[in-house]
Amino acid sequence: MDVVEFVECSIGRWRSQRSGHNLAFSHFEEVRSTIDIVSLPKTAPEVIELCKSSEVDIAQAVSPFQMSWQGESDWDNDEVIEGSCVLVPIPDLDNLKKGKLLRSQGYAETIAAVGEYQITEDGTFVLHTEYDRAAAEEKIWFGTPNLRFRVSLIKTSDGNGVLTASFSSEIRSLSMEEKS
Amino acid sequence: MDVVEFVECSIGRWRSQRSGHNLAFSHFEEVRSTIDIVSLPKTAPEVIELCKSSEVDIAQAVSPFQMSWQGESDWDNDEVIEGSCVLVPIPDLDNLKKGKLLRSQGYAETIAAVGEYQITEDGTFVLHTEYDRAAAEEKIWFGTPNLRFRVSLIKTSDGNGVLTASFSSEIRSLSMEEKS
Repeated sequence: MDVVEFVECSIGRWRSQRSGHNLAFSHFEEVRSTIDIVSLPKTAPEVIELCKSSEVDIAQAVSPFQMSWQGESDWDNDEVIEGSCVLVPIPDLDNLKKGKLLRSQGYAETIAAVGEYQITEDGTFVLHTEYDRAAAEEKIWFGTPNLRFRVSLIKTSDGNGVLTASFSSEIRSLSMEEKS
Repeated sequence: MDVVEFVECSIGRWRSQRSGHNLAFSHFEEVRSTIDIVSLPKTAPEVIELCKSSEVDIAQAVSPFQMSWQGESDWDNDEVIEGSCVLVPIPDLDNLKKGKLLRSQGYAETIAAVGEYQITEDGTFVLHTEYDRAAAEEKIWFGTPNLRFRVSLIKTSDGNGVLTASFSSEIRSLSMEEKS
């Protein structure tokens, strides 16, 4: 599987169950959310803008997409967690399975970020992103075409300590009702 | 990483946080447990017995170990979840990264099982086990030498449907107090 196929398989509406583990305090967090992943054309203004601000030639971009989410955590039932961001894969010249992933400023994040992705032999999308004071590692893979899993780790910026780990089960919403 | 190194890195006492996702009903389960993994000699009676009952030559076995666990679920605080089983890797003749994993009848399981394991290029131990009416897929990997992650899927026996998914964060217990 390469990044074009991976994005294609990810397009749609997903119902997500996410468990967060705070490793120092052994706390659990439970989040239920709806995630929408939609394909964007390379001519979309937000894609052009993100490439420009990242100093990347738009010709290198493949399969841009937008991800938005809306959910509720058991830590704070009154607060709705929501956000949206634009993602643009920039594969290496000779290899669609490896490259950079540009990510726009989301509602929840304060800065745009550039991650490094790699798709392993068993079809797992592995993404490393470094921020100023932390680093993130995500693994995303498909259990079936309609079931996606995601493990996200937030690490200290030196990459040695893991602060939180979370696991999401994402089921494709197939009913018309849920798509409305 | 091959299976000998993987077992070596796993030996010890681990404090585990596990989240279970029931995918049909979007239910969460939270389990806290302590897991002990100890190395066994190839001369241990339970290792010899497991190889014999599985009709495997003990000479093919590498790094046998015992895993035992004790924990509590938020689904039933009064019940202590505990069990123990013996595991014996039987690598392919030319490849320590691939082979079978024999597993004794545990306290919780009703039958012994033989799984197929493979260690991927990024050091993830992937195990497939088929039972009479279900199949299990586990991925286990190290975030750091003292932090192990495990994703377990319970599938329908045809391997197409996923019934439950769970995620464990396992932190090595280093203090003497916790080892007592």
